Amino acid sequence: MSTLVYNFGDGTADGSQKLKPLLGGKGASLAEMSRLGLPVPAGFTITTEVCLNFFANDGLWMDGLSDDINTAMNLLEERTGRKFGSPTNPLLVSVRSGAPVSMPGMMDTILNLGLNDKTVEGLAAQTGNPRFAYDAYRRFVKMFGDVVLGIHYSLFNRVETNYKRGKLDDELSVEDFKALIALYKKVIHDEKMTIPDNPKEQLQLAIDAVFHSFNNRHARHFRKKQGIPDDTGTAVNVQAMVFGNMGAESATGVCFTRNPKNGEKVFFGEWLPNAQGEDVVAGTHTPLPLNAASSDNPDANTLEKAMPEVYAHLLELQAQLETHYKDMQDIEFTIEQGKLYLLQTRTGKRSPSASIQIAVDLVHEGLISKEEAIRKVEASSLELILRPVIDPNAPKTIIAKGLDSSPGAACGRVAFTSEAAQALHEKGEPSILVRLDTSPEDIQGMTVAEGIVTAQGGQTSHAAVVARGMGKPCIVGCTEIVVDYERELFYAGDYVIKKGDWITIDGGSGDIMEGKVNTLPPATESGVVQEFLRWADEIALLKVRTNADNGEDASRARELGAVGIGLCRTEHMFFQADALRAMRQMLLAPSEEGRRRALQQILPLQREEFKEIFRAMNGLPVTIRLLDPPLHEFLPKRKENIVALAEDLGLRDSALQDRLTQLHEVNPMMGHRGCRIGVTMPEIYQTQVRAIFEAACHLARENVVVMPEVMIPLISTAKELEICRSYVVEVAEETMTRFGCNIDYKVGTMIELPRACLQAKAIARQAEFFSFGTNDLTQMTYGFSRDDMGKFLPFYLQEGILKENPLSTFDVEGVGELVKIGTERGRHANARLKIGVCGEHGGDPNGIHFFHAIGLDYVSCSPFRVPVARLAAAQAALVERT
Amino acid sequence: MSTLVYNFGDGTADGSQKLKPLLGGKGASLAEMSRLGLPVPAGFTITTEVCLNFFANDGLWMDGLSDDINTAMNLLEERTGRKFGSPTNPLLVSVRSGAPVSMPGMMDTILNLGLNDKTVEGLAAQTGNPRFAYDAYRRFVKMFGDVVLGIHYSLFNRVETNYKRGKLDDELSVEDFKALIALYKKVIHDEKMTIPDNPKEQLQLAIDAVFHSFNNRHARHFRKKQGIPDDTGTAVNVQAMVFGNMGAESATGVCFTRNPKNGEKVFFGEWLPNAQGEDVVAGTHTPLPLNAASSDNPDANTLEKAMPEVYAHLLELQAQLETHYKDMQDIEFTIEQGKLYLLQTRTGKRSPSASIQIAVDLVHEGLISKEEAIRKVEASSLELILRPVIDPNAPKTIIAKGLDSSPGAACGRVAFTSEAAQALHEKGEPSILVRLDTSPEDIQGMTVAEGIVTAQGGQTSHAAVVARGMGKPCIVGCTEIVVDYERELFYAGDYVIKKGDWITIDGGSGDIMEGKVNTLPPATESGVVQEFLRWADEIALLKVRTNADNGEDASRARELGAVGIGLCRTEHMFFQADALRAMRQMLLAPSEEGRRRALQQILPLQREEFKEIFRAMNGLPVTIRLLDPPLHEFLPKRKENIVALAEDLGLRDSALQDRLTQLHEVNPMMGHRGCRIGVTMPEIYQTQVRAIFEAACHLARENVVVMPEVMIPLISTAKELEICRSYVVEVAEETMTRFGCNIDYKVGTMIELPRACLQAKAIARQAEFFSFGTNDLTQMTYGFSRDDMGKFLPFYLQEGILKENPLSTFDVEGVGELVKIGTERGRHANARLKIGVCGEHGGDPNGIHFFHAIGLDYVSCSPFRVPVARLAAAQAALVERT
Repeated sequence: MSTLVYNFGDGTADGSQKLKPLLGGKGASLAEMSRLGLPVPAGFTITTEVCLNFFANDGLWMDGLSDDINTAMNLLEERTGRKFGSPTNPLLVSVRSGAPVSMPGMMDTILNLGLNDKTVEGLAAQTGNPRFAYDAYRRFVKMFGDVVLGIHYSLFNRVETNYKRGKLDDELSVEDFKALIALYKKVIHDEKMTIPDNPKEQLQLAIDAVFHSFNNRHARHFRKKQGIPDDTGTAVNVQAMVFGNMGAESATGVCFTRNPKNGEKVFFGEWLPNAQGEDVVAGTHTPLPLNAASSDNPDANTLEKAMPEVYAHLLELQAQLETHYKDMQDIEFTIEQGKLYLLQTRTGKRSPSASIQIAVDLVHEGLISKEEAIRKVEASSLELILRPVIDPNAPKTIIAKGLDSSPGAACGRVAFTSEAAQALHEKGEPSILVRLDTSPEDIQGMTVAEGIVTAQGGQTSHAAVVARGMGKPCIVGCTEIVVDYERELFYAGDYVIKKGDWITIDGGSGDIMEGKVNTLPPATESGVVQEFLRWADEIALLKVRTNADNGEDASRARELGAVGIGLCRTEHMFFQADALRAMRQMLLAPSEEGRRRALQQILPLQREEFKEIFRAMNGLPVTIRLLDPPLHEFLPKRKENIVALAEDLGLRDSALQDRLTQLHEVNPMMGHRGCRIGVTMPEIYQTQVRAIFEAACHLARENVVVMPEVMIPLISTAKELEICRSYVVEVAEETMTRFGCNIDYKVGTMIELPRACLQAKAIARQAEFFSFGTNDLTQMTYGFSRDDMGKFLPFYLQEGILKENPLSTFDVEGVGELVKIGTERGRHANARLKIGVCGEHGGDPNGIHFFHAIGLDYVSCSPFRVPVARLAAAQAALVERT
Repeated sequence: MSTLVYNFGDGTADGSQKLKPLLGGKGASLAEMSRLGLPVPAGFTITTEVCLNFFANDGLWMDGLSDDINTAMNLLEERTGRKFGSPTNPLLVSVRSGAPVSMPGMMDTILNLGLNDKTVEGLAAQTGNPRFAYDAYRRFVKMFGDVVLGIHYSLFNRVETNYKRGKLDDELSVEDFKALIALYKKVIHDEKMTIPDNPKEQLQLAIDAVFHSFNNRHARHFRKKQGIPDDTGTAVNVQAMVFGNMGAESATGVCFTRNPKNGEKVFFGEWLPNAQGEDVVAGTHTPLPLNAASSDNPDANTLEKAMPEVYAHLLELQAQLETHYKDMQDIEFTIEQGKLYLLQTRTGKRSPSASIQIAVDLVHEGLISKEEAIRKVEASSLELILRPVIDPNAPKTIIAKGLDSSPGAACGRVAFTSEAAQALHEKGEPSILVRLDTSPEDIQGMTVAEGIVTAQGGQTSHAAVVARGMGKPCIVGCTEIVVDYERELFYAGDYVIKKGDWITIDGGSGDIMEGKVNTLPPATESGVVQEFLRWADEIALLKVRTNADNGEDASRARELGAVGIGLCRTEHMFFQADALRAMRQMLLAPSEEGRRRALQQILPLQREEFKEIFRAMNGLPVTIRLLDPPLHEFLPKRKENIVALAEDLGLRDSALQDRLTQLHEVNPMMGHRGCRIGVTMPEIYQTQVRAIFEAACHLARENVVVMPEVMIPLISTAKELEICRSYVVEVAEETMTRFGCNIDYKVGTMIELPRACLQAKAIARQAEFFSFGTNDLTQMTYGFSRDDMGKFLPFYLQEGILKENPLSTFDVEGVGELVKIGTERGRHANARLKIGVCGEHGGDPNGIHFFHAIGLDYVSCSPFRVPVARLAAAQAALVERT
């Protein structure tokens, strides 16, 4: 074990940013800032190693820790010129957690530590402000009781409310604070506990509490949700207190070196005069804009106006910090009687579009390379820049307006609790979570809600930070609404919105609208995004195609950067009214001849659809999957529809019913579908292939370059593919001969059954390409069906049996192994085999990293995920460069 | 290429038995017999290599073949003292196929080759029997026209029937034969073909025809059915003709060195005086018993009585052959004017019980070792010794009696054609195929029928041989019935049995009974079988357990040699009336508490069931699978039952309907079942575990040794098992403490999902045993469900896409790889892991060989397959010893 305690202050530090795993994010940052000569209150950091040792030894302190802390406290006393526990010149400290990965608001903090009945008098004398001293003492007693002694804060709030009888804090006198302190102490005493008078004992207990807070329920849930490992432990930062609430010359604030909502290069932030930092973060006070750039209101009381010199100093320091860290910084500061202190700086959270704007700007400013820019943006956030917006022409009634803290439009039923949002979610209903403010208890509700509204709090409140992280539309500080939890409704002007009513919110404008308001598909990408994604494409090796079943989706995806279609499903072509009737005739025809006649009617309809798709993808490959679902999906299920169909086709009801019974399947997913249809009723696939090649030949005459890839689904043996392939080729050649044209085409297969992965060698000899259908492959490998897993999946996620829904986040260790086996064996048998993925996981960054690593050629995903996939593909390629 | 033609005759031979792959079974056997000095007509064998070359060169003869055949013919002329094509002393030959693996009756034969309008006169002169000579010529013309020229024999039969006008062959004169020959030649001429006069040309065409017959439809079907490779080709045997139809001193016959029905060591056979061999095999004549031992009728005209000296010679030769070949022989012989010739000997087909009796006797006689005995018996045939028999006390009406040619009782609807039997089979209805006689065209019908009856033919007829091979009950030569194909009925005395009527047959007695007659489970094994299986157990490494869900099955399986239960399903315990009501209460209970109350009622019922099973398996392990199927299986489906249940439980119909809707699953196989129930509703498994351990503790007090192994089904992640395991252990320990007793138990899991195989390492850390559930594993790996595959499986088998139904015959290359991976990884993580198989494949010899090869500890199968598995396990172990 190396050094246990790292000191910082007075322009020096034992540690630095490089020691983040050991000192935590906050500790490393404080050390770094101190080294940079920035005005950081002095203090020291107890390392994460100490924390892990503490866990391993059932909460016992390791040898030497007490001594090292005493030494550090001595140095701190020297640096501050104050004395810990001194009744005349007391040193007060904060004790804060700081893990290697940031978990905002998840863990514990104790402020004003060092106060007791004697030192409070010293503080009063020292500051000449007894009211401030007793207010600080009151806060300390309550916080220590809650955080360290574990007494629920509602017990303190109850006596406090009783005592205040509606008075505001500002109206309380020194005597009131003293009375409150006595009442709090009684609460603690009634719980058979006590706050030690000795500051060193206080410190020891507070350090223990911070260590323990690493494993509290919220923190664990947050880490699970964010995929943060549980074995890092937390560092503890002990730092001399500075006070933003020492009067008119004091203040506290949070600022960003750039606008975290849109990435604009403006200094941006909020402040609160005469307040402590916790007041801003907790969202219990609505803060003021830092400067003109932070507000639309020219009359706002900004720090820039109120304390121009301090503001100028802050402006200078923030620029220095950004240049040093080469990224947008989120900085906490406190002004104590006119003196500026920086308490923390860290990489600022930002909206997805801001994150791209900032990354691109930093490259243009010469601060970072393109590769660094690519690494900086979280791939999955790119889906969010394509989020829907409110239709400007839609009729809408704005009933309230709050702070626009996370962009995007969302529409859902009102839920006032996390539970209510989850209940709606389980019913498949969208919800908007409406709260006074949010806390870590609300995380699960926020996760399932479409959007979040809070009546209180600012741009850096819990709700705003978390919602931005999740990429969810969010409005905070909406003081125009009055939330009544008990009656489950909120008032907004003349409107009363009850639980379950529909509302629409616009996180980009802060508007709350009554009912469902029409939204528009996301705007086309900005030039910045396009530039950014061009850099990604230069780096990526994996190509990105799209799943698209019609010309419109194909065009859209092409605009978003797709370089082909990896999956064009053809089911819907049989479901359109005319085609459906013919399809039904076909299914009910007694002979192959009758089936062929019926199919003949479907052919021209499909040919036109294929033409649209091919035209949109001129010059790019289009993989078309032949019919996949079980045939009974094309027949009616309800009695009246069966009667109507029988009449339409001139059949007896009973004959139709017999056929329906014959087609019924117990497990349709594992039934007569995919190539099993192609093998037993070749005329269906033959018709599709004819439609494909007739469309291609028509377009070839117009000089459209068509590159069809015919894909046979659900192969489990090479023989199935051999049979289907042979007639696909036959029909293709026959059609091209008939049109006298020559189309460059491929025949391949979807690999979506475990056996196909294992048999890939034999199958590859019949195929020019493989496309892993990871949806079905995941379902078969796990043995559960997407339609039925809802009965146990929520429980599985909650209990941590599954970390993620494997249909959303690719299961690398299970399904991944089969994909790897299939790829290796396929390539071994056929080195020219083109291999891609066309399941949902083609747009899952987790999956994309894996698919890159095993050397696939492309992924295919839904159009809106194409930018995500392009970025993830680049990031996957960069992993190898480091 | 080595020698093309191998000669034999006069006590010498170029080849021997060792050259079977090259000379085919028949050719090798003729060579070997000739070497042994046995009276074999001289001849030569054209090798299988020549045949394969013929196929590879589009039917062209290879260089040198003509010359080699000429040389061989010269030698044959020398040996017989006759001349091929001589008008005075003609040599006649037979041309027969003979592949390395026997395909009885599947390929072509041409007799009397060498006859033409001139040589027939020579034959007449030579034998002094013009009638015989022209009969032979007539047969030759018809056979050559049919077999070599490919003219359907019905065309010949038509002119023949017209001509004969009801006369029998015996009543025809030389002139009649000449007239028939002219009529046959006209048929051939009308088909624009001709029989060459030149015997050498005849020979060349006949050899070509025999080569081609290797690939005829019947032969291909037979090979596919029997798993015989297609790439062996056939040899061709050209042999001097000897005639069993040269008058009263001539005869032909087939004999077995032991009784092929029961294995008894008696010389056994059939003969026909003055007939050709084909008359016996084809079943068109009903032959006579060879000796007293072959017949119950003391007055029968046996060869033993008719030609005592020839019989004595045959008796001597058959004993010599059996001693030489060390196995029961099937010998074809012909007596030409008092001289005995052996035409063929081969290992005789036998009934399953005979095969064991013979193997055991041969060991006791010192002819073979125990290991050889084990190798001789086909494992799958052992299931047949356990076939049902007719209940001796059941009321029954015997309507006819035929020859008891393959034992066992069967009951089904009458089908007169292969198609009709297949149609019944597809409806899930059992059938009995009733025919005048059978031919290779009927193979498919015989395959699906429960049993076979023929009105004609003897113990060596096609029907009898094939049925014995299939182990199906069969009665042949039932001359008491009159079959009318046209009206689709048969008469049996006063009874008229129509198509679709039920009949019951006893292949062991030859009785045909009206309607459905009660059958009894198979008799307990004979001492011989037990002795044989004890030898198997000494050799086998793989243990054999059984799948049994109740005490009775468990006892039965133990008698059959099972050394434990590998799969005790517990579903049925919830389906018994009392339990089902409680189960339904539980499923409809709104709370865990209500569920627990309902389960409390089920516990004692299950405990008693477990006690019966444990008692039957005293001292042996019992693997109990906790509840596996989806819960909706326990609720009613039909409206009236739902109403009744709602009333019974005091619920509203709609509430019940809601719950039913909630439990409905789209793909129940992949739904909320197996451990997913155990994880989400632990109280169900907890109740089962409590019942198991209460039963065990009760019995422990009676000194019954209970070894429960609790098996958790459908694991896809280690975590599921960890969770279930922890409460299984908790309940087990709690129960044992309560009873103050200590039971040796294990907790393990069923490996039945592809992911479980891949994750076996992690899973094995939570398990004391694995049991591969190959049924579900096969379904998931292939992505098809047992319930739905009927829609395409028949087509897949027919087209050879699948060689076998993979749910019956283990898929070594696909599913097998997953089992291998699961085994290796499981053992890697936990060297003490016990691993078995409990799917249907536990009784499939194919599977057992694989499971042995990868080192599993045991297989578990249904009770009646336990002997099969014991033998297959021994054979698998012997594979390694060679």
